[in-house]
Order: sequence, then structure tokens, then C-alpha cells
Amino acid sequence: MAKEFSTREENYSKWYNDIVQRAGLAESSAVRGCMVIKPYGYAIWEKMQGALDKMFKDTGHANAYFPLFIPKSFFSREADHVEGFAKECAVVTHYRLKNDPEGKGVVVDGDAKLEEELVIRPTSETIIWDTYRQWIQSYRDLPILVNQWANVVRWEMRTRMFLRTAEFLWQEGHTAHATEKEALEETYQMLDVYADFAENFMAIPVLKGVKSENERFAGAVETFCIEALMQDGKALQAGTSHFLGQNFAKAFDVKFASKEGTLEHVWATSWGVSTRLVGALIMAHSDDNGLVLPPKLAPIQSVIVPIYKNDGQYDTVVGKARELYDALKAKGILVKLDDRDTHKPGWKFNEYEFKGVPVRLAIGPRDVEKGTVELARRDTLEKEVVSMDQVVERVETLLEDIQHNLYNRALNFRNENTRKADTWEEFKQILEEQGGFIEAHWDGTAETEQRIKEETKATIRLIPYDENKEAGKCVYSGEPSARRVVFARAY
Amino acid sequence: MAKEFSTREENYSKWYNDIVQRAGLAESSAVRGCMVIKPYGYAIWEKMQGALDKMFKDTGHANAYFPLFIPKSFFSREADHVEGFAKECAVVTHYRLKNDPEGKGVVVDGDAKLEEELVIRPTSETIIWDTYRQWIQSYRDLPILVNQWANVVRWEMRTRMFLRTAEFLWQEGHTAHATEKEALEETYQMLDVYADFAENFMAIPVLKGVKSENERFAGAVETFCIEALMQDGKALQAGTSHFLGQNFAKAFDVKFASKEGTLEHVWATSWGVSTRLVGALIMAHSDDNGLVLPPKLAPIQSVIVPIYKNDGQYDTVVGKARELYDALKAKGILVKLDDRDTHKPGWKFNEYEFKGVPVRLAIGPRDVEKGTVELARRDTLEKEVVSMDQVVERVETLLEDIQHNLYNRALNFRNENTRKADTWEEFKQILEEQGGFIEAHWDGTAETEQRIKEETKATIRLIPYDENKEAGKCVYSGEPSARRVVFARAY
Repeated sequence: MAKEFSTREENYSKWYNDIVQRAGLAESSAVRGCMVIKPYGYAIWEKMQGALDKMFKDTGHANAYFPLFIPKSFFSREADHVEGFAKECAVVTHYRLKNDPEGKGVVVDGDAKLEEELVIRPTSETIIWDTYRQWIQSYRDLPILVNQWANVVRWEMRTRMFLRTAEFLWQEGHTAHATEKEALEETYQMLDVYADFAENFMAIPVLKGVKSENERFAGAVETFCIEALMQDGKALQAGTSHFLGQNFAKAFDVKFASKEGTLEHVWATSWGVSTRLVGALIMAHSDDNGLVLPPKLAPIQSVIVPIYKNDGQYDTVVGKARELYDALKAKGILVKLDDRDTHKPGWKFNEYEFKGVPVRLAIGPRDVEKGTVELARRDTLEKEVVSMDQVVERVETLLEDIQHNLYNRALNFRNENTRKADTWEEFKQILEEQGGFIEAHWDGTAETEQRIKEETKATIRLIPYDENKEAGKCVYSGEPSARRVVFARAY
Repeated sequence: MAKEFSTREENYSKWYNDIVQRAGLAESSAVRGCMVIKPYGYAIWEKMQGALDKMFKDTGHANAYFPLFIPKSFFSREADHVEGFAKECAVVTHYRLKNDPEGKGVVVDGDAKLEEELVIRPTSETIIWDTYRQWIQSYRDLPILVNQWANVVRWEMRTRMFLRTAEFLWQEGHTAHATEKEALEETYQMLDVYADFAENFMAIPVLKGVKSENERFAGAVETFCIEALMQDGKALQAGTSHFLGQNFAKAFDVKFASKEGTLEHVWATSWGVSTRLVGALIMAHSDDNGLVLPPKLAPIQSVIVPIYKNDGQYDTVVGKARELYDALKAKGILVKLDDRDTHKPGWKFNEYEFKGVPVRLAIGPRDVEKGTVELARRDTLEKEVVSMDQVVERVETLLEDIQHNLYNRALNFRNENTRKADTWEEFKQILEEQGGFIEAHWDGTAETEQRIKEETKATIRLIPYDENKEAGKCVYSGEPSARRVVFARAY
């Protein structure tokens, strides 16, 4: 199998693409930069959605839906926002096709030109804050805690399956508050929700912190983020939570009468994660044998492969396999029984290994005789033989073990690949030879950050807010620095 | 309350809009023809999605996601399809905005013109069948049973909240089969799924049948549908299931090697329901006091309103209300406790009545003393007093009762408003005076159907396939007819 696709060592980028394709997660489409998310890939996204949606609802949020289209003029209202997104907007200019007068299919009907062009949402702050103006009059109308599951479009020039595509799926929370304090608390709370999800469902440890000005969301006062480390030593921003201050309320004239009777602008947050997380999941855990999935997000947690050579064996073996299937299903385990006779057991073993199914069970005629089952765990590839009456319990334990093991493996990897750099030479050397996160002092200026990026392609991933400060000197300029920040090359 | 909004009698259309607005279901947006689905309206759609998604998965389907954009040239491939959709397509022509040289916000960047325009999907047959060409080589790759939850855009000139909007949310199933028989079975199966959902979740009885050629989906061989009757006597198409034959396989060159080794075109179906169902739900059951929701789709199935005059009463009453809340929640009932002190009980009663919450519970100081609760059911507005230890059980029974009662009420209404017409005069008279479904003979020609539509605005809703045929003469032309078909004016 290794011959058919790249290893991480040979070609990390090709390894990633091979997994996406061969595991049936996604493929490129006829439309530039847009992908087709295939059933197995979409099933992972659905599991992510399910877990996140519950977390959002448990923290008091409700879902709603706002238009795909944003009038062009809305974009100009918030200066930083338009600056940030104008260059990657898909624009609808017409609303009708007609038959080509020359008989070659259809052409755009020039008579059906829109008075004002519509932008396909790259993010929905503008259309939502235009709507919130209708919803908010008094402090009694606050807070508004709304989330939207939607598709968005950002016309990226360089795209990559899941990680960066012209259209992607995401959720975007948009909340409105009476006070700055409450909006900030919401911003932190949702970052915590994302970190919780990344660590406890995706089994990926993340750093939490705030972005530098250069990396801030266009229109935000502060952008908070979680950052994960991939196996090639590059960082991946896995979620952002923005404190928007009163920027959008001012741009869209959204005011409320306070308890004290004064008229105030509303405070805002927005926060989102996207199908990019599927890319992060693949890159964080998978190995040279294919995809590796944490049990909590695996569409199939356990697969049963019956092994038989003739019809007599089939009946016995598959009979036993069905009993096992029922027993596992009754425990709420997502189990699949693959009793197809069009494929051999060896092919099936490879297939489910490649697809990252956490636990594989094999039953042959001898197992039936001896009352045993062979278990294989995907994370370590270890096998064991378990007696039939203990299988269900063992699978349950294994699924928990694998979830923890993947997290710990990723945490060890991150710890081993987080280094302090105190000189510019050291900084560059670590980047070239090892990658990973670099904790270094920075003088706090956008200029220095920009020069470091130009010289090394490394950016400030975040300024940690949960650690002790330690004064020092900027690794690049030598100017004074109040604390270390985290640098890395990033996706 | 009746004064604040229209009754059905006064102005059915305004009554509908008032419910949509006042119950907080949706509102129009800054973008022509596009609505904002508000949290309460979206929660109903989520309940619909949940039930349907489970039914799709139980019948072997998996979700996937295909691009929002369709290259213009794809549209021309299937002749009927382009004919049907070209006139209502939103078209993306550019991918960038730039600062207006005259300093007035942003303008479309003329240098960023797409080589080929992209249509926002009005439905996804073309992009999906272009993709299926990659997925299908052999009979072993079939069937493909895929569904997509997505937004689509049809540039309608006259729009109406939920019923007809430029952008709407829907699901579209797209399946691929080796044989005509199997594809037809799938088409019927999914129509049955829709009918089951309409009747058992929405509590709306539906007729099942096939569309006439005029009303057929653009690109289908046959379109099957379910049709429901609204309270104003107009029909509403609540779901369609299309047998596409080999039309799209031929247009996109999708062939498979059969078991016998021949190369054949693939057989196809597609089927969909949309947020239009929320409109159907509103119109089928609601009354002059507001929205009425069937318990199975109600975001809040039961609301508890505590009644108190002072802090001492508050503690006792709300304490008891919380016990009740916990007991109902433990039974899986979607319950809300509204103990806000910013609104009076009378206001809350009106509010939840208007929002269609199936069962309202009120507890005051006297109830606490006597160990009772007052129950009110939304469908009949009847009240009853129940002892505290029997409330949970009673609510469970009531929810079932209401679900059945709404269905039976709608069924009676439909039966009373389904009439046979044997002469043209009779046909017109029923339409003018009573509306509803009209069973009449039709000569089977598109011409006659078109003339009937022009003269009366009535269309053939469906040709029933589950009834006995009865020969007769066309109500319009007098020509021979093999069976009655169902006419109505429709949404």
C-alpha cells in the first residue's frame, strides 16, 4: 500500500492530497477552487457540526439564516472590513441567461443587469448588522446570541482541499451586547468552546491567544484564536473569536436605549470555524498508512470484517458477526459490518485502515470455534485476540484509549516542537531545520512582524494570554519586549 | 390580540404575513426577494431537517456537498433543463471589487472578469452529474444514494416569505442506478418518505401522484409529487421526486460497465423539499389567534408560566414550576420555563399562544396550595386543571392528541374541500365559490391544460396513481378521458 501513495517524509503535501483523495474525503470540482465534499468527508463534518452545535446551544445560542447575497454598498460601510475582503469577492451582476443569438448554448442576458451588484458573502457581519438594527431598540432586546451554519465564498488564488477553498462551509456566530464587558466575556467563552472542541473531540491540543494587528480580522478590535501544530511543523489556525467593539454597530447605526435611558451603540462579537478543521484533523493524526480519526469524530468507529472461504463458513461467520454488530450497536457504537463478497478480507483491511476506522474486528471460522475475535487498533496498528464475551467492553475501552492516545501523541509532538529562540540566528535555524512553534521576543511593531514574515515566511500565530509575562529583547530588532509571542510558518 | 393582526376571513394573505412576522419566523432582508430566517422559524426548519435526515439515512442515503457555482456551459447540456432555469439564474461575472477611483466606496474590478460566467445553483443536477462521471465506472459503483442540504437561488420576480423566495434552503437527493426499474423504485420510495413526513410530522394529509407534462421538472422523464391543501382552498406542492431516466447521464456522458460487460448510460432520480414546507405548516394549521404547530415539529412543546404578585409568591411558585420543568425535561419534552419578571403572565399567554406552543402550563399560588396546574392546549384553546402528580403524563398524552387532532382536522378540511366536477360550469363555480381540490376528467393534452389555466388559474396538481381509473369526458373539451385528475389553484 505504501507504494501507491506518498509518505509524509517523501512529500508531505502529496501525502495530504493522497489521503484526501484515496480515503474518499473530497475532490476538486469543475469550478476553479471549489471542492466536492464526498460522503465520507461530509460525514466527518456532520459529526463536527453535531458536537459544536450542541456546545453552542448549551451556551445559549440559537441558529438563524441570513441571505447569501450582500449588497455591494454594505461592504463600504466598515472601512477595515471592505479593505480586508474586497479583493476576494465573487460578484453577481445579472439575474438571467438567454439563448445565444448565435445558437451556442446560453449567454448572460444584458437586459437583466442588477442595479446594485451583489457580493456572495465572504462573512456576514454587514448583512447581519443591517438586520440587527431592526431587532434592537432597548436593552431588553439584548443580548442577541445567534449562530449561522452556511457556505461562504472567498476568491482565493491558491486553493487546497479543505484548507483553503473558494467556497467553504462554516458556522459564524454573531452576538450583540449591551456592554463591552459582556461582549468580551462572550468572545473569551467562544474561544474556550473552540479549544474544548479541538482538544476533546478532535484530539488536537491548541494554544489560545490574541492575534497581532497584522493578523486581525478585518473590522475587529481584537481577534482571539486557537492555533494547532501539524506534523510538518506548520501551524494551523483552527478557530477565531473576534471582539468587534462597536465598529459594526456604528457602521450600521445600531443603537439601544440603556436601562438608564441613554442611547448607546451595541457591542459585538463574531466567531467561526470551518471545513478547514477537516484538513486539520487529517494532518494532525494521520500516518503513512492513511487517515487516522479520533473515535469521537469517526463516522465508523468500528468495522467488522468476516473471513470465510465457502458458503458453509459464510453462514457461521457472518451469523456471529451480526450478533457482534447488534451488540456493539446497542451500546451506541457506530459500527459497520462489511460482509460484501465482492471484496477480499485483505482488501477490506487495507480499505478501513486507510479510512482511519479506529477499531477493526475480524472473525474467521477458527474464531467462531474458539469464541474469539481479533481486534486491531488504528492508532498503533496493534492487534489482540479477545474472547467473544468481552469484545464489546474491550471495544468501548479501546475507543476511549485511542481518543486519549491521539491527543497525547499530538501534545507530545507539539511539546517537542515548541522551542524558545533568543537570537535571530537561532530563530532562523529552528525554522529551517525543525519548524514548529517558536517562542520569541518581539518589539510589538507591525514593521518588525512584516520583515520577519518577508525574510522567513513565519508569522506571529498568537500572543498568549494565559502565561506569565517575561521581559526581554526583540529577536529581530533588539528593542525591548514585554513578553514572548509564538511564531510559526502557517497554513 | 385579534385587532392587531388580520383574520383569515379578512385577508388571508395578510394573515399569513402577520403570523410570519409576529411569531418571529422570518422577515424580508435588504436583498430583494431574500428573507432572513429568524431563530424561531429556523428552529422549526431544524426539526424538519432532523426528521427528514434520519429518514434519508434509514433508507441508505448519505450526505455530501457540491459547489454553489455551476459553469454556465453545463446548463446548456440538457436542453429542457436550461430552458426551465435560464430565466431565473443569478450570475457571477467578476471575482474582485476595488476602490472606486471617484472615491465612492467600492466598484466591481473590470480586470477581474471570469472567463466563463458562473451560475448560482438553482438545483444541482448538472454539477452533480458532471461529478458522477468520475465516480461511476462499473455496476459495482452503483447505486449512488446521495443527498445534499444546501441553499439554492432562483431569481423569482414575485416572492413571498418561505413560499417563494429568491434564495431558499432545501435538500436535494441525487441518485444513480444501474436499471430503470431500480431508479423508478427509488423515485417512488422517496415520494413515500415525503408523504410519511408530511402526514406524520407536519400533520398534513397529502395526495400522491404524477405531474402532467406542463408541470414536470425541467429535465425529468416523470415528476411525482405530494400536494397539500391550504385553508384558503389553494393547493401547495410539498415535495417532488423526479425520475430523470438517462437524460443527465447522456448529457454528461456517464456510463457504466454492466455485469454482462456492456456499456450503459446510468439511470437517475432527484428529489427535494425546501423551507417552503415551513410556509405550508403555517398555512395548514394556524388560526386567527396565531401560529399552531404540531408537537413533533414544535421547537417548544410546552411552556410553563408562573403567576405571582410578590417575592414570597415568586419563590413558592417558581420553585414548583422548576420541579415541573425538570420532570417534563426528563421525559424528553421540549419545555420552556418563562419566569421573566419583565413581562406579565397575560402578555406571556398571548405570546406563546401566538407562537403556537402546543401546551401551556400555568401555576399560581393557589395551584401550589391545591397541588394543581392549569393546562391549555393550543389547537382547541381548551383549558383544564390537573393535579400536579398527573401533569407530566397528561402533557405527554396531550401532545399526542394534538398531533392527531391537527392531522384529522386537516384531513376533514381536505375531504370537505375535494369535489368532483363533471361540467365546465360546475368546475368554474367550485373554483370561484369554494376552491379546494377538483377531481375532473381531462383529455390529456397540454393545450387543454393550458387553456384551463388561462381561464381559471387552476392547474393540474397531479394525476393520482393510487386510485381506480374511471373513464369519462374532459370537463373542458368533452374529449374522452381515461381518468379523473386533480385540479386546483396553487401556491
